[in-house]
Amino acid sequence: MLSLAVVNGPNLNLVGLREPEIYGTQSLNDYLQSLREKYAQIEFSFYQSNVEGELINYLQQCRGRVNGIILNAGAYTHTSIALADALAAIALPAVEVHISNVLAREDYRKTSYISGKCVGSISGLGLLGYELAVLYFLSNQGATPGENL
Amino acid sequence: MLSLAVVNGPNLNLVGLREPEIYGTQSLNDYLQSLREKYAQIEFSFYQSNVEGELINYLQQCRGRVNGIILNAGAYTHTSIALADALAAIALPAVEVHISNVLAREDYRKTSYISGKCVGSISGLGLLGYELAVLYFLSNQGATPGENL
Amino acid sequence: MLSLAVVNGPNLNLVGLREPEIYGTQSLNDYLQSLREKYAQIEFSFYQSNVEGELINYLQQCRGRVNGIILNAGAYTHTSIALADALAAIALPAVEVHISNVLAREDYRKTSYISGKCVGSISGLGLLGYELAVLYFLSNQGATPGENL
Amino acid sequence: MLSLAVVNGPNLNLVGLREPEIYGTQSLNDYLQSLREKYAQIEFSFYQSNVEGELINYLQQCRGRVNGIILNAGAYTHTSIALADALAAIALPAVEVHISNVLAREDYRKTSYISGKCVGSISGLGLLGYELAVLYFLSNQGATPGENL
Amino acid sequence: MLSLAVVNGPNLNLVGLREPEIYGTQSLNDYLQSLREKYAQIEFSFYQSNVEGELINYLQQCRGRVNGIILNAGAYTHTSIALADALAAIALPAVEVHISNVLAREDYRKTSYISGKCVGSISGLGLLGYELAVLYFLSNQGATPGENL
Amino acid sequence: MLSLAVVNGPNLNLVGLREPEIYGTQSLNDYLQSLREKYAQIEFSFYQSNVEGELINYLQQCRGRVNGIILNAGAYTHTSIALADALAAIALPAVEVHISNVLAREDYRKTSYISGKCVGSISGLGLLGYELAVLYFLSNQGATPGENL
Amino acid sequence: MLSLAVVNGPNLNLVGLREPEIYGTQSLNDYLQSLREKYAQIEFSFYQSNVEGELINYLQQCRGRVNGIILNAGAYTHTSIALADALAAIALPAVEVHISNVLAREDYRKTSYISGKCVGSISGLGLLGYELAVLYFLSNQGATPGENL
Amino acid sequence: MLSLAVVNGPNLNLVGLREPEIYGTQSLNDYLQSLREKYAQIEFSFYQSNVEGELINYLQQCRGRVNGIILNAGAYTHTSIALADALAAIALPAVEVHISNVLAREDYRKTSYISGKCVGSISGLGLLGYELAVLYFLSNQGATPGENL
Amino acid sequence: MLSLAVVNGPNLNLVGLREPEIYGTQSLNDYLQSLREKYAQIEFSFYQSNVEGELINYLQQCRGRVNGIILNAGAYTHTSIALADALAAIALPAVEVHISNVLAREDYRKTSYISGKCVGSISGLGLLGYELAVLYFLSNQGATPGENL
Amino acid sequence: MLSLAVVNGPNLNLVGLREPEIYGTQSLNDYLQSLREKYAQIEFSFYQSNVEGELINYLQQCRGRVNGIILNAGAYTHTSIALADALAAIALPAVEVHISNVLAREDYRKTSYISGKCVGSISGLGLLGYELAVLYFLSNQGATPGENL
Amino acid sequence: MLSLAVVNGPNLNLVGLREPEIYGTQSLNDYLQSLREKYAQIEFSFYQSNVEGELINYLQQCRGRVNGIILNAGAYTHTSIALADALAAIALPAVEVHISNVLAREDYRKTSYISGKCVGSISGLGLLGYELAVLYFLSNQGATPGENL
Amino acid sequence: MLSLAVVNGPNLNLVGLREPEIYGTQSLNDYLQSLREKYAQIEFSFYQSNVEGELINYLQQCRGRVNGIILNAGAYTHTSIALADALAAIALPAVEVHISNVLAREDYRKTSYISGKCVGSISGLGLLGYELAVLYFLSNQGATPGENL
Repeated sequence: MLSLAVVNGPNLNLVGLREPEIYGTQSLNDYLQSLREKYAQIEFSFYQSNVEGELINYLQQCRGRVNGIILNAGAYTHTSIALADALAAIALPAVEVHISNVLAREDYRKTSYISGKCVGSISGLGLLGYELAVLYFLSNQGATPGENL
Repeated sequence: MLSLAVVNGPNLNLVGLREPEIYGTQSLNDYLQSLREKYAQIEFSFYQSNVEGELINYLQQCRGRVNGIILNAGAYTHTSIALADALAAIALPAVEVHISNVLAREDYRKTSYISGKCVGSISGLGLLGYELAVLYFLSNQGATPGENL
Repeated sequence: MLSLAVVNGPNLNLVGLREPEIYGTQSLNDYLQSLREKYAQIEFSFYQSNVEGELINYLQQCRGRVNGIILNAGAYTHTSIALADALAAIALPAVEVHISNVLAREDYRKTSYISGKCVGSISGLGLLGYELAVLYFLSNQGATPGENL
Repeated sequence: MLSLAVVNGPNLNLVGLREPEIYGTQSLNDYLQSLREKYAQIEFSFYQSNVEGELINYLQQCRGRVNGIILNAGAYTHTSIALADALAAIALPAVEVHISNVLAREDYRKTSYISGKCVGSISGLGLLGYELAVLYFLSNQGATPGENL
Repeated sequence: MLSLAVVNGPNLNLVGLREPEIYGTQSLNDYLQSLREKYAQIEFSFYQSNVEGELINYLQQCRGRVNGIILNAGAYTHTSIALADALAAIALPAVEVHISNVLAREDYRKTSYISGKCVGSISGLGLLGYELAVLYFLSNQGATPGENL
Repeated sequence: MLSLAVVNGPNLNLVGLREPEIYGTQSLNDYLQSLREKYAQIEFSFYQSNVEGELINYLQQCRGRVNGIILNAGAYTHTSIALADALAAIALPAVEVHISNVLAREDYRKTSYISGKCVGSISGLGLLGYELAVLYFLSNQGATPGENL
Repeated sequence: MLSLAVVNGPNLNLVGLREPEIYGTQSLNDYLQSLREKYAQIEFSFYQSNVEGELINYLQQCRGRVNGIILNAGAYTHTSIALADALAAIALPAVEVHISNVLAREDYRKTSYISGKCVGSISGLGLLGYELAVLYFLSNQGATPGENL
Repeated sequence: MLSLAVVNGPNLNLVGLREPEIYGTQSLNDYLQSLREKYAQIEFSFYQSNVEGELINYLQQCRGRVNGIILNAGAYTHTSIALADALAAIALPAVEVHISNVLAREDYRKTSYISGKCVGSISGLGLLGYELAVLYFLSNQGATPGENL
Repeated sequence: MLSLAVVNGPNLNLVGLREPEIYGTQSLNDYLQSLREKYAQIEFSFYQSNVEGELINYLQQCRGRVNGIILNAGAYTHTSIALADALAAIALPAVEVHISNVLAREDYRKTSYISGKCVGSISGLGLLGYELAVLYFLSNQGATPGENL
Repeated sequence: MLSLAVVNGPNLNLVGLREPEIYGTQSLNDYLQSLREKYAQIEFSFYQSNVEGELINYLQQCRGRVNGIILNAGAYTHTSIALADALAAIALPAVEVHISNVLAREDYRKTSYISGKCVGSISGLGLLGYELAVLYFLSNQGATPGENL
Repeated sequence: MLSLAVVNGPNLNLVGLREPEIYGTQSLNDYLQSLREKYAQIEFSFYQSNVEGELINYLQQCRGRVNGIILNAGAYTHTSIALADALAAIALPAVEVHISNVLAREDYRKTSYISGKCVGSISGLGLLGYELAVLYFLSNQGATPGENL
Repeated sequence: MLSLAVVNGPNLNLVGLREPEIYGTQSLNDYLQSLREKYAQIEFSFYQSNVEGELINYLQQCRGRVNGIILNAGAYTHTSIALADALAAIALPAVEVHISNVLAREDYRKTSYISGKCVGSISGLGLLGYELAVLYFLSNQGATPGENL
């Protein structure tokens, strides 16, 4: 059975609570619950924390317990070498997700310690990005075709 | 009816032809044909060129003819302001796809003129990235939830 | 009734405890208590933590509960995009305070992720900086006159 | 008797004259006059010039004549080493004031030659910044508590 | 009646006086007088100063008195944020002129604080650049067609 | 008889076709035709291409056939050393034109390989810029007066 | 009696647990216990956390309780000004230890906020580095001979 | 039989045509023909284009058809990641040739995307550089002795 | 008769007036008068201003009136392109003098626009530097022996 | 029998001779002799030179003659690629030693060509650093545990 | 008679001695002797030193004694301005040779002080590079055809 | 009796020997001998070497033997931290001399490790610079008046 941990970093707990007239009343939590229902064949673990070290703690605990990681490290993407080291240390395939298009925002969001430790990344496609990452793990297409393309 | 143009840049014509023992015998062309069959409800246009300016010509012709662009600009991603300007000028929603994880490669691949003109991007997930981009357009979830997330 | 949260970051709990022959025996805590007495018309909340993520937790809880933030993020000023994102997400007016003149110190203290998310900042004026920030909120002069000045 | 020079640099003479529907009809001049009335126990000198060298001339003349400087060097903040040298040469305590939050504006406003020669700075708090600087001098709390905070 | 101020910065008073065997005996002054005669339908004001702050003084006085500015800020182009702020503050359409092709010279002439505050710029076309700027104002074609071109 | 080539680079073929409510219905083509009619004493050649190498081909063919070049290289201005080399190789006087004020836009538009190979440049003055460049060639004032101004 | 705190940062809890075929079955914990037995004349305190702020909390508690610090801040070495400030604030002699040769790894590991606040550092010598740091404190040779060597 | 493709990039078609009094009347074409005659035992293919993408097309067609590449990418050396990717993709030994000493020219010619994908390079030795590259392939000494020398 | 202008920039009027217990009671003025007496065969002109533009005015007036310039531009050395342009425009031999060793001070004093326009410079040798510059002009040894030394 | 070469670079011959009231009368020479006596089971070779190339000569001669290198390259640490190449070429395990804490000094001492070619480094622990390096070789613990720690 | 000096810098004396199973048993010395035999019509001088200054001494002695220099400065290529100055001072034509492809190695090998003082350079073609440089001198084709190519 | 060492670095032995029609037949040696005769009251030691380490050896030997150093480190000025360290270690007053105006030459000559260790410097004044440095020592005016000037 496929087992995935969906790990969310700082401020992502505010999605769906803040500005409901814009984002609707569906919180990230609700969204993730709907994923769990839609993909019943997958065992999901959901975790969110605003504390960099707690995210590291959680990632370390994923070793030997899940088959893959879906990680939205939020702003720690751009500043946390420690989180990237944890990802490297646990040696699990991970897909990076960002709800907004980080490459179209401030320059300091263009540095990413996390990306190089992941199989790939999805950004700017909204909450759908989490589902697309799930589909990646389901498709079982881990090998990257075409290094130079 | 949803109409999508899948536009591929330099050297992407070699995918599937080069090193078949690794990447299999399925060329990018074959892969895209299989997408066309799988998503028969979508009208697909496929285009590939190694010439920067021909890619611009093609993007300009997409105005008024398709609903969205799936663009793998290959190495022009990192060097072509002209291509990015074309994307801005035609004002169509575009999703950027890279087969490999460009952020885990050479530093000069970290500059992207294209990303800022797209809704979002998918990289490192192999040929599957194209299908995930198709799913994005199908899901109709164009609004980016959570600018600060 | 005006309600202000005074939020202090890493190492600020040591003010007044360290080197009393220099700084006197008045700790930051005592100083803040004296502010509370002097400005009885204001409802103050005081919070200090050395943990970046706990500061984010606290700021998030301020939404809907206070009218303004006085924030001395200490060294996280220069490294925490996550804290700045939290500030942006809660959308409350904030004044940045630094006890020492950070711009006259090491170069790496010249980067500030926090400043751009605040109304303004006060630095180098000692503990008095907190009181001046209180006066700003009391004076109710939130509109910045003269963008180009 | 406390004697303070309030020195304003380029374009600050336009405050209150330009765009009165936004900034009101109170000019910087009028504002400073109201400070003089409110703090009658202080001897104020007000000076404004658009000429870098005249500001240096004036600062040099302050030696031995005032107890402190309140300086809004405007755009010279970011370009004038000569003004910073003058400040260092006259060795009077100075507080830097900016009406807008300079750290939230263009990158080239993040360089400051002036800040390192001042006791501290106040920015983004509007015209009130001048009054807060006056309060600093009145509070007589020149020693900076907590170099590492 | 169209009223234009032609403002020249440091060292431009030497044009035509220095090295007459090369530049002829027509000074910048004479050239500008000939412009006045040729375009009698325009009310011209000519000003030159080597002092940055006096140029600011003059620009401030142009508010409400002229319809447009033709500005050759000379070397201040590359160093004066204060002059650029003045230009922004007076909110008049301005065309930047340089007699030589500044972009083909030293690297430090490639920084321009002025250009971003002007409608456009003309450089390298000799004294004729001033006349072309006049023609721009006469042609009344202020709207910039084609932001992405 | 004066013979001028007006060479336009990527995306400039869209001027006048895109967003007619803003830019009117006059295309760049129509504009250039009107120039041809207005300046009947000049033999004009007009060329546009989105392909960098075709622009080089065309410039090479201009050798010995025209007296001057008016070049709007569009985005290739900022990325094409090859185009700049072609300009240097053909050794014809060229005037650079940009419809928008490139120096007021993104930082990456501040690099220009083209400018240093041209006599001068005109930017931000709309389509009129082309006509002003024509006037430069007519005025026959090729020598740049005042290298240090 | 000599009292030393050995403080380990993020991911160091994984040493000896991960990849035992390479690193053996001796965990960092076991190694440190063996140090305690070997150097019975020293009072050791061992602490590890993945949370930056908890490391700061712990360092603050070391004031007045130990004679020296042996600190392996892991990835926080390169990103945490707050940790460096804590080290400066507690004013205890500290020796920095890294198990691997950080200077032979990625460029972003060449920035160290910690090193400048320590007496010295040992890196690349494996777990032995901790013991060598202990020997330093035992040798009592705190004064650095030869500033310019 | 040794088969070599000699590929020349932008503006190299002008060699020998431009400024014959300096470079003689021998065009690059003529020179290459003389090489073909001198080294009759080699099957040569000659190609030149000013279009980056056509050079890529040609390089791709060399796969399986030639034993080695002699490449003078001209200005694309410094700007074309796509060309470098093509070189990597076809996996043929290539020697880079430049007629002039590119390292002694403008700074922007010091960036080379091409060099790292070639066995080695020859620059500054005029047209002779092509012949020396031919000799390299003839000498069959592909292995680079002395990585650290 | 040798005629020299000794030109001093911002804050140099304070030499000898400030901190007399350290620098003695000899002002720069007095020192320069003593030079005039010691070198009676030279016609000296002395000028000091804190205003950048007035220094330019003065330098322009030196054309045709003196044989050489001794220039201590103070802080304008590091910021004034306009002053450097003036120096270039008047084409008189100039020797740069700094009383302190500017290269041993802040990094921002390592930029010099002035030095490249002077024959040479003397720094760090106190007021004596002015006299050594005088001796240079007297020695009449203008040609620099050994460009590569 | 363990054989170690202790190699010291420029200015290290002055240790113990200069400022004896601070550093004592024990020269580096005397210190190294005492190491030889204390560790009689090791065959030591001591070498010092101020000449970069002589240090390279000596390192080359160590091939096949010693088991390990203890290297304090002094200032050549920061400037000598040639020395680093020599270290790589002889392929002997080396430990870098610095008497002072180089990372706490000038920025230009933060570049190290040497460190990446060594097993590890010890800095800031005074002359004791040499002895700790000896202990490393004695402990025989060459494998670095924990690449990511 | 053609007279050439072949000058080799640091660590090049190890070629052929180190790792013979890879590089064969032919030392650089033997290779150069074979060149001497093959090109008996040339008078060769061979020199190698690890000492930067001795290389300078040797180059200086080449003045008036040889017709050309073949220089492999090894790592000094990237660090020695003094060697480059010597090359400029002796004003002899020089060809730079590198055995490996330096441009495909570490970034710090991309700086070259030597290249700009040479006619051209050959790198990555193994020991053959020396012979190709000899052929260059024999071909007598010193003039570089095509500066812009 | 005043005792001065005049120390010259790489390539300075060529002054006067090279290009005598330009520089005359007076070598640096002859010039220095003439200084010795002119200033008989001073005991001079002259030293020149092209070897960085020999210059360090010589400077070290100056300790306790001379009163001051006149140092022209040639190109080592810009690359040798070791030489600068030697200068700091011997703690003798030194004046830096350059024959040419180094600040008006290549950018890489703007870095100086030497200047910060000297009292001051003289550059661009030809061989006379050495004599002016002698005069500085004779004038006995070591204290730098006016740190901020």
